[in-house]
Amino acid sequence: MCGIVAIAGKAPVNQALYDALTVLQHRGQDAAGIVTSDDHRLFLRKDNGMVRDVFHTRHMLRLAGHYGIGHVRYPTAGSSSSAEAQPFYVNSPYGITLAHNGNLTNSEALAKDIYRSDLRHVNTDSDSEVLLNVFAHELQIRGKIVPSIDDIFAAVSGVHTRCKGAYAVVAMITGYGIVGFRDPFGIRPIIFGERDTPAGKEYIIASESVAITSVGFRIVRDLLPGEAIFIDNEGNMHTRQCADKPVFSPCIFEHVYFARPDSIIDNISVYKARLRMGETLANTIRELHPDLEIDVVIPIPDTSRTSALELANQLNVKYREGFMKNRYIGRTFIMPGQGQRKKSVRQKLNPIELEFMGKNVLLVDDSIVRGTTCREIIQMARDAGAKNVYFASAAPAVKFPNVYGIDMPARNELIAYGRSEQEVCELIGADALIYQKLDDLIAAAREGNPDIERFDCSVFDGDYVTGDINESYLAALEVSRSDGAKRKVPQGPNLVDLSNGE
Amino acid sequence: MCGIVAIAGKAPVNQALYDALTVLQHRGQDAAGIVTSDDHRLFLRKDNGMVRDVFHTRHMLRLAGHYGIGHVRYPTAGSSSSAEAQPFYVNSPYGITLAHNGNLTNSEALAKDIYRSDLRHVNTDSDSEVLLNVFAHELQIRGKIVPSIDDIFAAVSGVHTRCKGAYAVVAMITGYGIVGFRDPFGIRPIIFGERDTPAGKEYIIASESVAITSVGFRIVRDLLPGEAIFIDNEGNMHTRQCADKPVFSPCIFEHVYFARPDSIIDNISVYKARLRMGETLANTIRELHPDLEIDVVIPIPDTSRTSALELANQLNVKYREGFMKNRYIGRTFIMPGQGQRKKSVRQKLNPIELEFMGKNVLLVDDSIVRGTTCREIIQMARDAGAKNVYFASAAPAVKFPNVYGIDMPARNELIAYGRSEQEVCELIGADALIYQKLDDLIAAAREGNPDIERFDCSVFDGDYVTGDINESYLAALEVSRSDGAKRKVPQGPNLVDLSNGE
Amino acid sequence: MCGIVAIAGKAPVNQALYDALTVLQHRGQDAAGIVTSDDHRLFLRKDNGMVRDVFHTRHMLRLAGHYGIGHVRYPTAGSSSSAEAQPFYVNSPYGITLAHNGNLTNSEALAKDIYRSDLRHVNTDSDSEVLLNVFAHELQIRGKIVPSIDDIFAAVSGVHTRCKGAYAVVAMITGYGIVGFRDPFGIRPIIFGERDTPAGKEYIIASESVAITSVGFRIVRDLLPGEAIFIDNEGNMHTRQCADKPVFSPCIFEHVYFARPDSIIDNISVYKARLRMGETLANTIRELHPDLEIDVVIPIPDTSRTSALELANQLNVKYREGFMKNRYIGRTFIMPGQGQRKKSVRQKLNPIELEFMGKNVLLVDDSIVRGTTCREIIQMARDAGAKNVYFASAAPAVKFPNVYGIDMPARNELIAYGRSEQEVCELIGADALIYQKLDDLIAAAREGNPDIERFDCSVFDGDYVTGDINESYLAALEVSRSDGAKRKVPQGPNLVDLSNGE
Amino acid sequence: MCGIVAIAGKAPVNQALYDALTVLQHRGQDAAGIVTSDDHRLFLRKDNGMVRDVFHTRHMLRLAGHYGIGHVRYPTAGSSSSAEAQPFYVNSPYGITLAHNGNLTNSEALAKDIYRSDLRHVNTDSDSEVLLNVFAHELQIRGKIVPSIDDIFAAVSGVHTRCKGAYAVVAMITGYGIVGFRDPFGIRPIIFGERDTPAGKEYIIASESVAITSVGFRIVRDLLPGEAIFIDNEGNMHTRQCADKPVFSPCIFEHVYFARPDSIIDNISVYKARLRMGETLANTIRELHPDLEIDVVIPIPDTSRTSALELANQLNVKYREGFMKNRYIGRTFIMPGQGQRKKSVRQKLNPIELEFMGKNVLLVDDSIVRGTTCREIIQMARDAGAKNVYFASAAPAVKFPNVYGIDMPARNELIAYGRSEQEVCELIGADALIYQKLDDLIAAAREGNPDIERFDCSVFDGDYVTGDINESYLAALEVSRSDGAKRKVPQGPNLVDLSNGE
Repeated sequence: MCGIVAIAGKAPVNQALYDALTVLQHRGQDAAGIVTSDDHRLFLRKDNGMVRDVFHTRHMLRLAGHYGIGHVRYPTAGSSSSAEAQPFYVNSPYGITLAHNGNLTNSEALAKDIYRSDLRHVNTDSDSEVLLNVFAHELQIRGKIVPSIDDIFAAVSGVHTRCKGAYAVVAMITGYGIVGFRDPFGIRPIIFGERDTPAGKEYIIASESVAITSVGFRIVRDLLPGEAIFIDNEGNMHTRQCADKPVFSPCIFEHVYFARPDSIIDNISVYKARLRMGETLANTIRELHPDLEIDVVIPIPDTSRTSALELANQLNVKYREGFMKNRYIGRTFIMPGQGQRKKSVRQKLNPIELEFMGKNVLLVDDSIVRGTTCREIIQMARDAGAKNVYFASAAPAVKFPNVYGIDMPARNELIAYGRSEQEVCELIGADALIYQKLDDLIAAAREGNPDIERFDCSVFDGDYVTGDINESYLAALEVSRSDGAKRKVPQGPNLVDLSNGE
Repeated sequence: MCGIVAIAGKAPVNQALYDALTVLQHRGQDAAGIVTSDDHRLFLRKDNGMVRDVFHTRHMLRLAGHYGIGHVRYPTAGSSSSAEAQPFYVNSPYGITLAHNGNLTNSEALAKDIYRSDLRHVNTDSDSEVLLNVFAHELQIRGKIVPSIDDIFAAVSGVHTRCKGAYAVVAMITGYGIVGFRDPFGIRPIIFGERDTPAGKEYIIASESVAITSVGFRIVRDLLPGEAIFIDNEGNMHTRQCADKPVFSPCIFEHVYFARPDSIIDNISVYKARLRMGETLANTIRELHPDLEIDVVIPIPDTSRTSALELANQLNVKYREGFMKNRYIGRTFIMPGQGQRKKSVRQKLNPIELEFMGKNVLLVDDSIVRGTTCREIIQMARDAGAKNVYFASAAPAVKFPNVYGIDMPARNELIAYGRSEQEVCELIGADALIYQKLDDLIAAAREGNPDIERFDCSVFDGDYVTGDINESYLAALEVSRSDGAKRKVPQGPNLVDLSNGE
Repeated sequence: MCGIVAIAGKAPVNQALYDALTVLQHRGQDAAGIVTSDDHRLFLRKDNGMVRDVFHTRHMLRLAGHYGIGHVRYPTAGSSSSAEAQPFYVNSPYGITLAHNGNLTNSEALAKDIYRSDLRHVNTDSDSEVLLNVFAHELQIRGKIVPSIDDIFAAVSGVHTRCKGAYAVVAMITGYGIVGFRDPFGIRPIIFGERDTPAGKEYIIASESVAITSVGFRIVRDLLPGEAIFIDNEGNMHTRQCADKPVFSPCIFEHVYFARPDSIIDNISVYKARLRMGETLANTIRELHPDLEIDVVIPIPDTSRTSALELANQLNVKYREGFMKNRYIGRTFIMPGQGQRKKSVRQKLNPIELEFMGKNVLLVDDSIVRGTTCREIIQMARDAGAKNVYFASAAPAVKFPNVYGIDMPARNELIAYGRSEQEVCELIGADALIYQKLDDLIAAAREGNPDIERFDCSVFDGDYVTGDINESYLAALEVSRSDGAKRKVPQGPNLVDLSNGE
Repeated sequence: MCGIVAIAGKAPVNQALYDALTVLQHRGQDAAGIVTSDDHRLFLRKDNGMVRDVFHTRHMLRLAGHYGIGHVRYPTAGSSSSAEAQPFYVNSPYGITLAHNGNLTNSEALAKDIYRSDLRHVNTDSDSEVLLNVFAHELQIRGKIVPSIDDIFAAVSGVHTRCKGAYAVVAMITGYGIVGFRDPFGIRPIIFGERDTPAGKEYIIASESVAITSVGFRIVRDLLPGEAIFIDNEGNMHTRQCADKPVFSPCIFEHVYFARPDSIIDNISVYKARLRMGETLANTIRELHPDLEIDVVIPIPDTSRTSALELANQLNVKYREGFMKNRYIGRTFIMPGQGQRKKSVRQKLNPIELEFMGKNVLLVDDSIVRGTTCREIIQMARDAGAKNVYFASAAPAVKFPNVYGIDMPARNELIAYGRSEQEVCELIGADALIYQKLDDLIAAAREGNPDIERFDCSVFDGDYVTGDINESYLAALEVSRSDGAKRKVPQGPNLVDLSNGE
């Protein structure tokens, strides 16, 4: 997952882009980047690392201009792409920079296409560089020295026609403006806002609403599936539906885990959705395990706290924060003659023994993916003296990989893939295991916005909304995401770049 | 406040010291350092920054040896000391390194003393460098080529005689062993642990119990006030009471705010103490404001969550996490032509409007110091639609400065200094303000260990246990801690060091 | 001035490119860069600084592949361009990287052209980025997925048609090969070599022959004016004349000052040319000052040593190295409250008093540009006790700016511009001043290769071989090169880059 | 070998110390350091690397004060000491910092002594840290709060009594002044100078006279063997002979190779001494090889140029710079799967073929140590077409190791150790080999100052002036200097330091 932001302002935007990226940092902590535009010249800073580490004063001083875009990166599909930071740049036409959240499912075919059709060289494995070149090509074939608004929206339509998968995108066309667009299924979130200044109206586009409000803008609305927004260099805002038959089917996992609870996505308060997940999960527990004696409900911090608290309320059981999170995790160094030692969950969480000793505890997490952390935590609870340890997941069983931009393991690494609930329960060592029902999850999310036709729930039900994911795609994914396939890419400041920079 | 750790091991200790420092990171985030000893040679790495930023692989590779000590620093009394990282070193006698948590109240006089008596040059404003030189002098006057256990404990007694204030200390005497000691009032916490390895027993000394258990040791016990522990180079452990008339009076603020909730200090579970603070605070609310209508209890994250939850339970009111904490705060850059802009609380906390709209909310924080944050938060609650905003502090009114190592502002910057509760309530803009009663706070802490004679509660009652703090001391403090007095010290990697390093 | 190199090898080329750049370091010490190509992927490292500072092990590890090009940069025409390091990159067509030595005299017009004709955005003030885009455009309009050899040479012809000025260029067309070419006047040097390896023949192209021989290749020959060389990805070498009416008129200043003495340029040994300059200069001295009593000939190190030694031989006067050069010049730091202090010549040169005391000394330098250094040195000689100080310049009076890639000041800063020899002599404070005659200089150079039709001697005679330099061009140059016009560009590691890098 | 400097000024001395260190850079390029003193506080910056790399603006800003000392380091006796940069520091008494050029021959015994007598811990293998502690101890036993001038000179006498070997030292006693002293044999050079400023007289002490004059001071005189100079904090200068029976026997190798030619050491112009070496060497050649036909004399740059030029004059043979030195040597990187490749002499020197082809060349170098470089160069001359290659060394055969601070290999690595001149000639592949006679070398140096009683010529004749070097010392040296004995010490910025820094 990644976070994107763009601001078309009336004053320097570097600090506001930076602040917005820190608010979106939970969406990606691997790399960060900002590009700004001033008088037809671009200024770019990007590197591996967190926002606070990537940008120093000397970089900020260079990021001049009133228009700019930014990105925080989480490694997505394909481990080799972990070396690339965004935004990406192509110099023709116009000089375009782009930042992207999502994943193209036909990226490989597209890369070959754009080479054949436009001789465009793609230097990375990143689907975002491909997407940028597709967009650039769609603009270039119009051949205008000054692209019109129609040209720009037509280019977005061209992207919709050629690109498959999930994409929320911001791009800056040097000298002409900033464009944002969302794939025809609206899988990834993108929202825009505005504010009034003495010099005129300023616009912001971002992955989540908190990034808009926290830097002092007010929310206008989410982009619709397939829709594009363009703010021209004079600051005029234009929107247009650029897709033929958009189907509104946003990713439900944003509500389960990914988004910040204080965000509102497609008019759904993530916080409220999580409260409702706690409520429905309580119902399920009562229904399936009417006799379960629970002394205390303990969340696995941080995400599950919201649902766990409401779940406890509903069950009328005491809620306690029995696990303390160590917020300052350091590295494990490889010293000569030592093997790699794994940072275990025990270095991240610490149990308060008092809350476990002799009790029947219900642990609540947002979801169960590999199950390894889960098993360790349950053991910690037992070591702390718990009598019985029950485990509840605010999401249903995760059985399928995500192909829309969430870095989830391949099928065979998912603990619930091909296993019954009972088998999972035994594997993680719980005395009982309760999953949210998928219908309940959907209901919890949809209650916030009944207009949403469907959600992408593919990690739970294997039904991929874009319709292009088949068994052979998943099998290939399995190979590429396996640990053995991971290319080692050395980290470092700007190890490699292809730049004509000032 | 600072964190200290020492390990006398049977194998390399660099990783364990590093891990322990990350667990103590909440006690100080300004600077970090580790020194190890291998075959009479010392290896030191220290710098400004957080643990994860200070230590890279190349540094860890150099930190050889089975004995070592570490430190994380929070700027304490005297702003000029903010440039010095610990451990400190003197080469005579023996080569001694030392790390210190606390504050000497007679540091200036001592610095003159050790120059006069021993010609020892102190190069910084740090009281820790003074303390090290006092300890070194006390050892040196014994003049032994091989110091005996008695010599070492006698040196600690010498420190107790000469040094006033609070100090929990670990020191390494090159080639002879590691010593830890606690001031005769036991103001700052220090605890030790052990573990068995095939090569023999290993010992650890640390500020908090979590640093001991998290790196795989088991707790033995806290050091008593005035007591010292010495682990010689063969790994034998010795303890001795080195003070004449120790008075057990630990700092109560560790329980209010500073320590991690999962720590146990002087046999008191910080977590439990905070639960009890919630309970007594509930009683006080019921007593003083029997008619207060409260719809929801909302903690100011993170510290106050524990007491707020129990307070809500006791009041039988809904508990909700209405403020989301932004965990990735970045910098505000000063751009040419701009003034310094302050990061407001709004960038650190984000309200969930749903939990405020139309409600009577009770906000709970661990304490109120300057009151500025408090006022901003109350305004945020009102902006989010709260009907009435009540504010409860899990600690009594903070009216006096701390002179024992907690970086608190001078008296005139404390909102409660010279003001009635009602005046404070009006200043922060609350509809009601409830402070914990001091007796309740003491009871909440003491319940965990009735053997504790008294607590240092000086920030609340102005009664300084060491007996050497008078009006002129406080007046001088006021001058030195005022903003204008702060010397600007440029930050940077090892800008200056005085080293004979390998 | 800059230095360029390219290698089409059968094994990794990173170390050889690096070594060649160190040998070319005298041609540019401001910035350095290498790009390599491996399996259609590019790896780039470039930054401000000297070669030894720009490339660390971590960078070299990333520079994979058997083909690559490199560059060292000296700031040329236009101070604002001093921030850009080469090679430059465009992704369409094919992904092309390019490094350039020289200067385009119609760069501004071309930048507008390529935007209009191809929508290509140029992000810097560098004429090299413009040149790359022109070349890229010329290739792209052929529209081949696989460019033929004819396509590539046609593109070079296109460059010759559109670009004015001096350029020696190496470029890498990702996946297809490496091309080198020289402007139709052959102003800047470029030479190629080869070597046989078990895996086949390897080729190298470089600015100077020493870069070829020092990395173990043998010289084949210089490129002719207008000629191009292409080594395809299979390692086959092709050359072709791509200009209509090439005129062989290389820059004579390479022989005076710029090139290394151990280089052979266009079949002329720079070393021998300088010996001959010493010889002819001796003749001129005898002719114009038959009565001059000279006790000792002292060169201004390092360049003039070769001619000064021969001059002394011819005059039958003692040759002595009376000035020692400080090879470790540091910076002058600007401390608060201080103005900028200039590093004077006295920090670079130190006189051996013995060689001056009471003597008539003849100082010899390669040329006189601004005259300020010259004046200081003469004063140093007097301070050291010289009776009379005569000054000889191995080159004629420099009266005109260079527009072909040598960073020389504007006309009004040249001491000889608009002044008689006598006036210059007085200004620099010499007792006599002797300039080389232009005919002698040309003869000294041409003797090495009688085939050369003419030399570009524009800095001496104002006759610019490209025919496009008029008074208005020079006037504009004067404005842009004046100190006031210099844009401050902060230095730093990759402050800004526009990259889609791996 | 190392370089030292100290300035007792009336204004900030950081820039002047920095400039002086760059002038002394030829004496040591491994590490550099400066410490300054301001109001009893010390500011230190030191690190591995050259002066220009160690000091950045942020460091210079911190080096406040009017008194300071500096050091450049060349790795000397004992390879493990290569990790320590100077100046060193001890905090008791007074806080003393010290920089040292030379080598103590009884360092190990002293280290044990100062531990036993004063419990002083020495943390490195550096004899300079030992020397500092000896000096500190000698001051401390006087026990004065304010040391008198007599105390300081008495401490120097104490050093003379206890320390054996060569040492030229500058030290700063915080708050009291700067002291400089020279061992009783005067082996290493040290000279002082002064200048007048409106605020009073300023003093400088340095290894070589060029460091004094180049920063704008005038030379006063060299320190005599055993003599000390002290400039107190008020700026008053005092000197005293502190040794019992000083014997003036400076190192002759400074004149052969180490010192800058423009320095004057003990009243001997290094430049003139080298001219004389050329003269006597010419005589020897005529005497021993009266029939040798020599077409050209070619120096091996840079040191031998001075003597080679005079040698050519004397022989009335053409002098030519047939080898060009590559001044920008880079690294050879170790890539995965590659062994270490050695930078050969061919990357440092490039022959001008013209000067060798068909000629009888006489190569001249300052000395022959290992002989490997020599052999390579002779081969290069042959490859360049030389008919006969003769080799002349301006110094006699080097047969013994240096124990006074010059990093020379052990005996068994010296090509002339245990070999006849003829054997060496054959090993290096010369057609004739001519060494300077030792008497001629001594005469060449002594002519500058007949007062010098003797020179240390131990590397030529094995006669060590300090009288404490016996066979067992040399045997131990052989073991410790062998390649196998070299400890790997990782490089890096301030990897380890033992500091109580501000």
